[in-house]
Amino acid sequence: MADAKKPRMEKRGLMERLNAGEIVIGDGGYVFALEKRGYVKAGPWTPEAAVEFPDAVRQLAREFLRAGSDVMQAFTFYGSDDKLENRGNVSQEKHTGAVVNSAACQIAKEVADEGNALVAGGVSQTPNYLSGSGKEAVQEQFRKQAEVFIKNDVDFLIAEYFEHVEEAVWAVEELKKTGKPVAATLCIGPEGDLHGVSAGDCAVQLAKAGADVVGLNCHFGPVKTLEAIRLMKAAMDKEGLKPFLMTQPLGFKTPDVGKQGFIDLPEFPFGLEPRILTRWDCHKYAREAYEIGVRYIGACCGMEPYHVRAIAEELSPERGCTPAGSQKHGMWGDGLRQHTKPWVRARARRDYWENLKPASGRPDCPVLAKPDGWGVTQGDKDLLQKTEATTDAELQELFQK
Amino acid sequence: MADAKKPRMEKRGLMERLNAGEIVIGDGGYVFALEKRGYVKAGPWTPEAAVEFPDAVRQLAREFLRAGSDVMQAFTFYGSDDKLENRGNVSQEKHTGAVVNSAACQIAKEVADEGNALVAGGVSQTPNYLSGSGKEAVQEQFRKQAEVFIKNDVDFLIAEYFEHVEEAVWAVEELKKTGKPVAATLCIGPEGDLHGVSAGDCAVQLAKAGADVVGLNCHFGPVKTLEAIRLMKAAMDKEGLKPFLMTQPLGFKTPDVGKQGFIDLPEFPFGLEPRILTRWDCHKYAREAYEIGVRYIGACCGMEPYHVRAIAEELSPERGCTPAGSQKHGMWGDGLRQHTKPWVRARARRDYWENLKPASGRPDCPVLAKPDGWGVTQGDKDLLQKTEATTDAELQELFQK
Amino acid sequence: MADAKKPRMEKRGLMERLNAGEIVIGDGGYVFALEKRGYVKAGPWTPEAAVEFPDAVRQLAREFLRAGSDVMQAFTFYGSDDKLENRGNVSQEKHTGAVVNSAACQIAKEVADEGNALVAGGVSQTPNYLSGSGKEAVQEQFRKQAEVFIKNDVDFLIAEYFEHVEEAVWAVEELKKTGKPVAATLCIGPEGDLHGVSAGDCAVQLAKAGADVVGLNCHFGPVKTLEAIRLMKAAMDKEGLKPFLMTQPLGFKTPDVGKQGFIDLPEFPFGLEPRILTRWDCHKYAREAYEIGVRYIGACCGMEPYHVRAIAEELSPERGCTPAGSQKHGMWGDGLRQHTKPWVRARARRDYWENLKPASGRPDCPVLAKPDGWGVTQGDKDLLQKTEATTDAELQELFQK
Amino acid sequence: MADAKKPRMEKRGLMERLNAGEIVIGDGGYVFALEKRGYVKAGPWTPEAAVEFPDAVRQLAREFLRAGSDVMQAFTFYGSDDKLENRGNVSQEKHTGAVVNSAACQIAKEVADEGNALVAGGVSQTPNYLSGSGKEAVQEQFRKQAEVFIKNDVDFLIAEYFEHVEEAVWAVEELKKTGKPVAATLCIGPEGDLHGVSAGDCAVQLAKAGADVVGLNCHFGPVKTLEAIRLMKAAMDKEGLKPFLMTQPLGFKTPDVGKQGFIDLPEFPFGLEPRILTRWDCHKYAREAYEIGVRYIGACCGMEPYHVRAIAEELSPERGCTPAGSQKHGMWGDGLRQHTKPWVRARARRDYWENLKPASGRPDCPVLAKPDGWGVTQGDKDLLQKTEATTDAELQELFQK
Repeated sequence: MADAKKPRMEKRGLMERLNAGEIVIGDGGYVFALEKRGYVKAGPWTPEAAVEFPDAVRQLAREFLRAGSDVMQAFTFYGSDDKLENRGNVSQEKHTGAVVNSAACQIAKEVADEGNALVAGGVSQTPNYLSGSGKEAVQEQFRKQAEVFIKNDVDFLIAEYFEHVEEAVWAVEELKKTGKPVAATLCIGPEGDLHGVSAGDCAVQLAKAGADVVGLNCHFGPVKTLEAIRLMKAAMDKEGLKPFLMTQPLGFKTPDVGKQGFIDLPEFPFGLEPRILTRWDCHKYAREAYEIGVRYIGACCGMEPYHVRAIAEELSPERGCTPAGSQKHGMWGDGLRQHTKPWVRARARRDYWENLKPASGRPDCPVLAKPDGWGVTQGDKDLLQKTEATTDAELQELFQK
Repeated sequence: MADAKKPRMEKRGLMERLNAGEIVIGDGGYVFALEKRGYVKAGPWTPEAAVEFPDAVRQLAREFLRAGSDVMQAFTFYGSDDKLENRGNVSQEKHTGAVVNSAACQIAKEVADEGNALVAGGVSQTPNYLSGSGKEAVQEQFRKQAEVFIKNDVDFLIAEYFEHVEEAVWAVEELKKTGKPVAATLCIGPEGDLHGVSAGDCAVQLAKAGADVVGLNCHFGPVKTLEAIRLMKAAMDKEGLKPFLMTQPLGFKTPDVGKQGFIDLPEFPFGLEPRILTRWDCHKYAREAYEIGVRYIGACCGMEPYHVRAIAEELSPERGCTPAGSQKHGMWGDGLRQHTKPWVRARARRDYWENLKPASGRPDCPVLAKPDGWGVTQGDKDLLQKTEATTDAELQELFQK
Repeated sequence: MADAKKPRMEKRGLMERLNAGEIVIGDGGYVFALEKRGYVKAGPWTPEAAVEFPDAVRQLAREFLRAGSDVMQAFTFYGSDDKLENRGNVSQEKHTGAVVNSAACQIAKEVADEGNALVAGGVSQTPNYLSGSGKEAVQEQFRKQAEVFIKNDVDFLIAEYFEHVEEAVWAVEELKKTGKPVAATLCIGPEGDLHGVSAGDCAVQLAKAGADVVGLNCHFGPVKTLEAIRLMKAAMDKEGLKPFLMTQPLGFKTPDVGKQGFIDLPEFPFGLEPRILTRWDCHKYAREAYEIGVRYIGACCGMEPYHVRAIAEELSPERGCTPAGSQKHGMWGDGLRQHTKPWVRARARRDYWENLKPASGRPDCPVLAKPDGWGVTQGDKDLLQKTEATTDAELQELFQK
Repeated sequence: MADAKKPRMEKRGLMERLNAGEIVIGDGGYVFALEKRGYVKAGPWTPEAAVEFPDAVRQLAREFLRAGSDVMQAFTFYGSDDKLENRGNVSQEKHTGAVVNSAACQIAKEVADEGNALVAGGVSQTPNYLSGSGKEAVQEQFRKQAEVFIKNDVDFLIAEYFEHVEEAVWAVEELKKTGKPVAATLCIGPEGDLHGVSAGDCAVQLAKAGADVVGLNCHFGPVKTLEAIRLMKAAMDKEGLKPFLMTQPLGFKTPDVGKQGFIDLPEFPFGLEPRILTRWDCHKYAREAYEIGVRYIGACCGMEPYHVRAIAEELSPERGCTPAGSQKHGMWGDGLRQHTKPWVRARARRDYWENLKPASGRPDCPVLAKPDGWGVTQGDKDLLQKTEATTDAELQELFQK
């Protein structure tokens, strides 16, 4: 039995909604949330939980739906066959990519039907590309995943989490062959992709490749993501290109990252807690994204259901509705009226939370970090695909660097 | 179908385990976790989700079980009738406390049976006490809850989250009548209870009242909680009292709190993110608690399943086992061996994570906060039980203070 | 030619002033200020500059006078013979303590006469004490210094910078023999002296030994110094002892120090800059000290002339005058009215500066430090007096600790 | 009698030294240091102390000489007639600019002769320029000052502290007429001047105008100043222009400033303490400046004598000498060998101080500030020259902005 409370309507497609001027709210970050719940392994970050622990994946999807997500993205991140067998990952021995991806689609569809949400299938960057295996080999990976998505009749496709626009363009080309709408997002920031292509040029290339929606996901928090989407919009405007815009930033503060984003931060992935956004940070993100003109407003790693709910609450005047989850949340802290202690009740007001500067409680820590900057990118031997686990000797060598 | 992988053994009781010298790992914080998932309302913090959204509660319980919890505590926090109707909370209109508490017990039992976990029922401080209704009225609240726990045949009882030892002693007296083992924890720190009773004297009173396990939960992070448990142990040792020790601290850093704990922090409850513990903070907590002699080592608000897993992993040498959830977690970051990027693989080592000082990414914020200090306590009119919702006029008056 | 503008009056003594209920403002920190100006060596911290660079010492004294100091303390800190030859210090080869102390008195008198200031001679803790040489040897050091002070006819004597109240009592006894008023200050904080005597008991001992003024100097910033003077006052009040109170705190923020004070901070002495007080911190210190009842309100290491001026400006209503130096300082930032830029002119107001929370501009640094805690105290071989310089081998041994 | 210990040699001029490949070390910040000593008023920041308190100015000059400065810059900052009577400044009523500037030259010459230092006269931006009075009126101000410098036969001239390169070029043109070498420095950062001219273009314009030395002073700390000098060097290299390079940065950390520099920081000028550089920051600055190719390496506001000494000590291998002031300073903390406490002796080593991350002791403060950004520049009415003091009504109006 589902807990979603959305009224069932005849489902309209992604392009219909966007063309009608509606805001589409994405879902949050599955891999990080499921890692914390115990079902995804940090390191490989592969999605075999869709087969192994479907209840856990389904529950998280329902929470995003309840929080206001209009899209249930099948939990297929890094679900390509070459990734499932990379560097000692044993998932592939147990489940092929096709099985994992198909299970993920089933869950997404089941939950989407409980509300009025769209189902999306997604592909992301491949070890094959980093290994320099060439366009054909890379597109073969995408094709295998797309076949599963089509078999499961998803509503649209997403090419996401690409560090190099070249590979993203290859993905868009392949996904467009399905006839489904295609959204394409890079995991880059204002400094552009890892081959030195500017953010603006990246956007133009994606739009020209046929992406219906163009944008950014992961690797950067809202501030830098919005800084980059502005550059992308400006470049596309200049060329007369008008795809819809999409942002799915991290749920972390990243003022100190460089070109490669948060994986360069020393805190990645097990010490990011002090950087987690508050719900009020998400209000700000949603408002600013909307004002820039982004209409597919979503979230990525670190964004939990309550973050998505904050996005939906901020945009409730524009959307004309609050999410089902607001049943358990007073807007702008209003629920604190029911708190036992008077000084906590005194916090039941918007200006209190909007202006709060939250302390970290960590006086022995720096406030900004110095990101790693190995400058290793596509083609480097350390990035090659490899089925064997990393040995102690290899690790020792890395520790010296 | 459960995802827990623990071998089923004949279940041994709490006192059997503790008397055998075993470590008992508690579960984490339900109200905060379920608030973020969309099922609990911040402000009243009441547990009607056990009736309304049993799937969501069950899923969280399973995650704690999988993380290594030996105890499934029924989700009955603040589940007394007087709380469910306090200050405009409408839950009581729909569900009596008995129904909510009973549903919570059912879920706890179901999940506990999937592993080898104990089931606990808990009572906590009541609006009646704060309103000065007297011992009989207060104990009546506890009695009603205890009856439900006995009907559901829980394994043991917890009296937790008391700011005044007097009320906790009343709870222990009432719970002891059931014949079940009783654990009693206060939500106080090193400065003692809100009536000025020292931490040491509080412990002595609880032990003398018959509590089998004595300790602390909530309101303070691990550092202050352990500072206080040391004081409690010393005072009980001096009196020759030897109950088992228990700690269930917050999953937040609280170096700057006063006597009242984290609810006095300006960040409570919607801006605590920068204070969230890393898993490595939990390793440190677990080790230190163990060394002090605490054997019931648990967690409270802000502690998510991965925090509990870290506690279980730290104590795996002593316990002789790792939790089921470690299937998806390399000890001390070892899973990063499978990461694509070499500089992230270089973080697959204990000393890296043990010594990391994580940055907050918030250079515009203070690092420590100045807690509110209204000094309002039991007997004050602002703390009286009240079924009506707080009005705008009442709020305005509070804003001025 | 002096620059001081104070009207010449017949000079009244320290006790006359204090007995009349007046505030006596001390001077600031000579050794730290002169180290930054190039005339004192950090490490030995000895005052031979009084002989070697009298112009530089005189100029600093004039600046303190101009800032509002009512006392010119002869620059004789650590001027005992045993200190001047300690650990490779070559000063003693060139100048005996008597010559240095006498030169310092001459400078202090010359400058004091330019205003209406008192001249004080001071003794401080000795290597002999730390080496366990016994009362007679230690008092011999004080006696030799006192003789110089008497020859130079100073107005009163100060026994300052003692970590052990025992040695301070010996100093008071010796200084009292001169018949001059004696002020005695320890460099301790709220945790008491290094032998474990509480701050309160320390004060009582000093008062009973005959000190006319009792208090604290150095090692702690204003906040902890005032916390400790409160304890001292309470203990003396309880015993009916009523000496005048005196505080000369550091010009540094020290929220994170332990019992030994700022020399335990990793930043001591060459990285303390981020902790330097603003003038507004000094306003707050002066007001609070006054309200506690301190009437000898001074300053120590890190306090520059403008800090002393801030103390004098804060207390100008009580004193009925502003210092000469206020000719070049608009109260509460008022001089900014004359700034070229309008947004800087907009800062010409008290509430702006009173509420400013100044940023450090150091996001890569911690905010609080972990002090060293070697726990080495009187009697330990590492503290013994020693005329030879520290060798490389000895240093290496220390680095390992 | 001077305290400088430098051997007297026949004095060689600025260009001789630079052409011979020597490093020329500038002096530090007079206005800020003298403000803290009580002789300069923050707000107007004018240099009438050269007449009123010559001893104080002379003492500071001697300290810079002793610290290693090769240049004694006459204390004539903001010494133009139009500035001395701006916004209620009464200095002009008492002393004409000519008298002040002449007195400053005399002091600089006297001290320079005690060592082997050069004497420089300087002009800086004028209220006339900000008021839009035109080239002729502005150059008239410079001409009057230059006449004084020539009468006093200074060794070279400095045009410094210009926010608009246009005015700096006018100054260079005027100063070049004297036949003396001319150094020109802007108070801009990497973002260029306030009219939007890039840092590179600014440098090119100054070099083309005939400046023998081109660079930057004030408004930015070392990091941003060196970032900007790199841009200036690159642009001049491209044009084949090869003036010598000069940097005189602030003694403050300014990672968070915008185009206008530190006067936009909320801490300017009375709350900058937490940003003060350590001596080790100056070592780093000196080394990096040298490596970029800067040969006139100096300092500005906030740089005290010990900061200049650190610059001279860092470059002592290249210069073949240490400054006289090093007599009282062990390189890299070596003087701590003579400290009484063993854990402080253990800090007598380079790697300790080079790696120290100093804590601010201010956990209630932000770490970076949000600079004001009024965007008011030349031509705006709020910047017009005005002899009347700012009224309360005008202030009130500013407070609203």
